[in-house]
Amino acid sequence: MTTTGAGRPRLSTRKRPGATARDEILDAAAELFTTGGFTSTSTRMIADAVGIRQASLYHHFANKDDLLTALLVGTVTSPLTFAEDMRESPEPAAVRMYALTWFDAQQLANSRWNLGALYLLPELRTERFEPFRAQRGTLMDLYTAFARDALVQINPDAELDLRIAQLPFRLVETVINTRSDAEAEGSSASPSPEVIADASIRILGWTGSTTELASRTTALLDEYSGGQR
Amino acid sequence: MTTTGAGRPRLSTRKRPGATARDEILDAAAELFTTGGFTSTSTRMIADAVGIRQASLYHHFANKDDLLTALLVGTVTSPLTFAEDMRESPEPAAVRMYALTWFDAQQLANSRWNLGALYLLPELRTERFEPFRAQRGTLMDLYTAFARDALVQINPDAELDLRIAQLPFRLVETVINTRSDAEAEGSSASPSPEVIADASIRILGWTGSTTELASRTTALLDEYSGGQR
Repeated sequence: MTTTGAGRPRLSTRKRPGATARDEILDAAAELFTTGGFTSTSTRMIADAVGIRQASLYHHFANKDDLLTALLVGTVTSPLTFAEDMRESPEPAAVRMYALTWFDAQQLANSRWNLGALYLLPELRTERFEPFRAQRGTLMDLYTAFARDALVQINPDAELDLRIAQLPFRLVETVINTRSDAEAEGSSASPSPEVIADASIRILGWTGSTTELASRTTALLDEYSGGQR
Repeated sequence: MTTTGAGRPRLSTRKRPGATARDEILDAAAELFTTGGFTSTSTRMIADAVGIRQASLYHHFANKDDLLTALLVGTVTSPLTFAEDMRESPEPAAVRMYALTWFDAQQLANSRWNLGALYLLPELRTERFEPFRAQRGTLMDLYTAFARDALVQINPDAELDLRIAQLPFRLVETVINTRSDAEAEGSSASPSPEVIADASIRILGWTGSTTELASRTTALLDEYSGGQR
């Protein structure tokens, strides 16, 4: 699909999804970082992939780290917004947990590029990426809070093992590994958000059917995506 | 701890763990790949870190890919051997599953370098790394087989959802992410193998206490490590 750029002089016609040049640059960077590697990709290669001059790229992003930050932050903003919305919801804790794991597993499974595969880059440990790490940390904390509430709801008398409360977040992120392995084998088998949500709530001690949780979640997601439009 | 090399002329005294020069090279490569990144590390840097000449390194490994292959294969050989041992065991399926997840989570948590963080490198998708991918695939298949057997033992009448059987393997590998995040924050909190084993068996529908599974596993691991000596 090729659409022409809107009112801005370009070296070539637009060839990437995105309403703006900035979006096109991000899409090209995401492709090159996830398929060729972050270190092996230069801003020149990204500019070439968009069909713009390197100088034009620098108009939007100061350097490669800025691009990576923008992409990584993009992987946590939508689950963060959803989790903050859910936190205010009157739904029982188990439903909130189920809905968050479903929502996040779905967005990780369906995103155009598997950007979570970059979370383990040693480069991310540097000071420059602290803002991203802080945002992902906030998301992790929300997961843990939801999981603690669900643990208490499911089994009010049990002693709270907080190490268990950290697992739903981890389990959701396994979508990244499943996608990566499928891509390595040339398959596109995408992990099911429902299976991840089910497994997460069972880790927290849920033993019955999850049909009710799933149908309530579907309704919540419909409502939410309606409200976001 | 500094020990002198055994009978081989060296530029410097031995400064890394390992009985042989080959082990020292692997240890240096593991450190540099996991802390500086695979792409950013040269064989020259590895040789320097060991205190040998680059030519001596090439005596043991043809190139950087060979080093990476050896390190990655090292992350799956011990759980593979254990899984093959467990497959022949007369233990109930739930015990075999519990023991495998415990054993593997433990070795991933305690390995000197967090090498699993390299699993998502785009480089691994190339033909050169097919031997490693095949071995990890064999381990994954053993996990799935154990999980199917456990699903049948736990709930013989339920319809088998094979997507669930893939989750214990994924959950165990989250040890890699937990370690990586802890290292980024300068902490050394290591994930508990017991918590991972517990969560894995609950995903497969286990609802009761896991005390019995855990004590049987401890006995099996003692026996096994005795047999390996």
